[in-house]
Amino acid sequence: MRIEDKLSERTQHMQASAIREILKVVAQPGMISLAGGIPAPESFPIDIIRELSNEVLDEFGAAALQYDKTEGFDPLREALINYLPQRNLVNVNDKTLTIFSGSQSILDIVAKVLITKGDKIAIEAPSYLGAISAFNAYQPEYISVATDDEGIMPDALEETLKQHTIKLIYLVPTFQNPTGRTLPLARRKRIAELIQHYDVLLLEDDPYSALRYRGEAVSSIQQFAPEHVIYSSTFSKILAPGLRIGFGIAPEALTHWLVIAKQGTDLHTQSFGQAIAALYLSGGYLTEHLPRIIELYRPRRDAMLKALETYMPQGFRWTEPEGGMFLWVMGPDGLDAENLYHQCVQNSVAFVPGRYFYFEQGVGIETLRLNFTMVSADMITQAVQTIASAAEAMMLSNQ
Amino acid sequence: MRIEDKLSERTQHMQASAIREILKVVAQPGMISLAGGIPAPESFPIDIIRELSNEVLDEFGAAALQYDKTEGFDPLREALINYLPQRNLVNVNDKTLTIFSGSQSILDIVAKVLITKGDKIAIEAPSYLGAISAFNAYQPEYISVATDDEGIMPDALEETLKQHTIKLIYLVPTFQNPTGRTLPLARRKRIAELIQHYDVLLLEDDPYSALRYRGEAVSSIQQFAPEHVIYSSTFSKILAPGLRIGFGIAPEALTHWLVIAKQGTDLHTQSFGQAIAALYLSGGYLTEHLPRIIELYRPRRDAMLKALETYMPQGFRWTEPEGGMFLWVMGPDGLDAENLYHQCVQNSVAFVPGRYFYFEQGVGIETLRLNFTMVSADMITQAVQTIASAAEAMMLSNQ
Repeated sequence: MRIEDKLSERTQHMQASAIREILKVVAQPGMISLAGGIPAPESFPIDIIRELSNEVLDEFGAAALQYDKTEGFDPLREALINYLPQRNLVNVNDKTLTIFSGSQSILDIVAKVLITKGDKIAIEAPSYLGAISAFNAYQPEYISVATDDEGIMPDALEETLKQHTIKLIYLVPTFQNPTGRTLPLARRKRIAELIQHYDVLLLEDDPYSALRYRGEAVSSIQQFAPEHVIYSSTFSKILAPGLRIGFGIAPEALTHWLVIAKQGTDLHTQSFGQAIAALYLSGGYLTEHLPRIIELYRPRRDAMLKALETYMPQGFRWTEPEGGMFLWVMGPDGLDAENLYHQCVQNSVAFVPGRYFYFEQGVGIETLRLNFTMVSADMITQAVQTIASAAEAMMLSNQ
Repeated sequence: MRIEDKLSERTQHMQASAIREILKVVAQPGMISLAGGIPAPESFPIDIIRELSNEVLDEFGAAALQYDKTEGFDPLREALINYLPQRNLVNVNDKTLTIFSGSQSILDIVAKVLITKGDKIAIEAPSYLGAISAFNAYQPEYISVATDDEGIMPDALEETLKQHTIKLIYLVPTFQNPTGRTLPLARRKRIAELIQHYDVLLLEDDPYSALRYRGEAVSSIQQFAPEHVIYSSTFSKILAPGLRIGFGIAPEALTHWLVIAKQGTDLHTQSFGQAIAALYLSGGYLTEHLPRIIELYRPRRDAMLKALETYMPQGFRWTEPEGGMFLWVMGPDGLDAENLYHQCVQNSVAFVPGRYFYFEQGVGIETLRLNFTMVSADMITQAVQTIASAAEAMMLSNQ
């Protein structure tokens, strides 16, 4: 059988994530990797999870192991409805909340419900490409919207909304992957006005906002336009990604369809992990453990900023994120960050060349995404020194 | 916002499962339900799961909580590759096995990879409609293939393959849901020949074969045509459905695309539950626990057959499944099983009218699906008595 002859039209739009391919290369022993996008394993509350695994079976018994309703495990739904308003993050109630199998599954199911082949999705450039790999299955067209140092530019977005019929806007407004940028409050309010005025849905992907090391929290866009926003978040960065527990908040009428689509996609999200997440919230364990994650990551972020300041040659700029997992380095014109990547890998240091985060070819050639959560402050300093030396050598040889 | 105006074309083909709606009605206190399709909670190895949750953290540590590769958690993959050939079930190797988030997710992702709008899927009539709810998102056409007391009829299937370009055949060959029928070996071999001759892919959905109470195991169709079969199974019936761990075995070239599609759909299946399932297999716990599940269900199945024999009025026939969770009752012509359902619900007994398992309207009006795993043998006997009395009364009033 020639499988190629049997594939659906949509499959031809799928491709393996280039970044995941890079991550395989850099998993070699001895490599200091600033390439990954995963939490540090020492951030996981293993002892709490051990305790809660037992408590879940005591408290919920077979219900934590049985088939469950598609909307999500009730104790987790209740815990989230109590918890989220405390953080002043979002508007949420029983009719707008759905538990999903990680936030990747939210991206998939939102696109499944909304996107007909050829529909247009507006995305920031650069953007989180895991979203593109979810959306591609439904064959949308993408419209890139320009960003500056504060994130997506509202005027550029409005121009896009005037010129195109946009089905969905996709944004990561807080500690964005890959840039670490956070959209300021004024822009959030302006975007909320725009999506209401142009009657467009926005998918606000927010995996990182709980990881704030400096400064004050910013309201979600969802709070300003709850009828036009699908808010998505996850336990992957505050508990453990291996549990694959995400949650979405959407307008009630849309939630109805998300649940029906989810029923056909995976029936429901695993109950045992939902039960652990429920007790993690309702038992106050998150409140206890989250500061530990923040104290683990803050010095790493500070070390990276300091090392960049100390070692990077003239002509480089970078973002100074107040939270999250990444920062974005912009080299001088003519720098080829992919060449730099190959130089650094030979010296056992890895990062992701920024061009992989652009949907369009030939853009972001001079940019780098650096992760600052996975390795120790010392190793970060050492890695940045290596990158700085390699960059300096490349720039000299270019002159 | 009018959400209806924003939905994708495919969403208009989605609908909530009618059976799940019935299940909500019958969840009332005091109801004896033969309607469900879920394992008895007392079949779950809660103490083993408690022990393994701890062992998983001792043995795998953070790896059981971290992001993982899309193909599945290596220890579970290895355990399955060792275990499955012992049961002589399927051909499997490292390049053909993928772990999925429950077998519902296999149905979704197989259809995602193969089905372009308008492609034809051949299904048994009656069939498992959870599959239809997964497939509908990709807008196929369905071709029903006739069945008799031994399951799908190979001649009818061949006729279908001659008349139509079929992209995928969907079958549950062992202890089928809803009928409990098992396709005999000779038919399996004939179907293996047909799919090779007509070069068509078959999705062999096998959630139940481990639950055998009588008789001898039958080879999977996959063993006779591994290049043309996607074999799907699950831990839902032998461990716990709430963990949502399924596995698929597909031709190598197709597995490549299933993995890419799964990456976009949910990144990977939850690691913690995969780690539990790995130790459940490799530590010999399944071998220890499965006989307990079988000994729990066998007397229930026997009680149902005996009660049907004892109480049902003339003109009724039923299947005598050697395993699984369901049997199928066929009433005399003119019996309206939905009327019978309403009569029985008034007497606190529930089942699912068989017509819900047909894709076509107006078929299977006189049929009933009875589940024999969820309630005790005594309650099964009592429930069958109630159904028999109501049927008798209806038949008398029809004369």
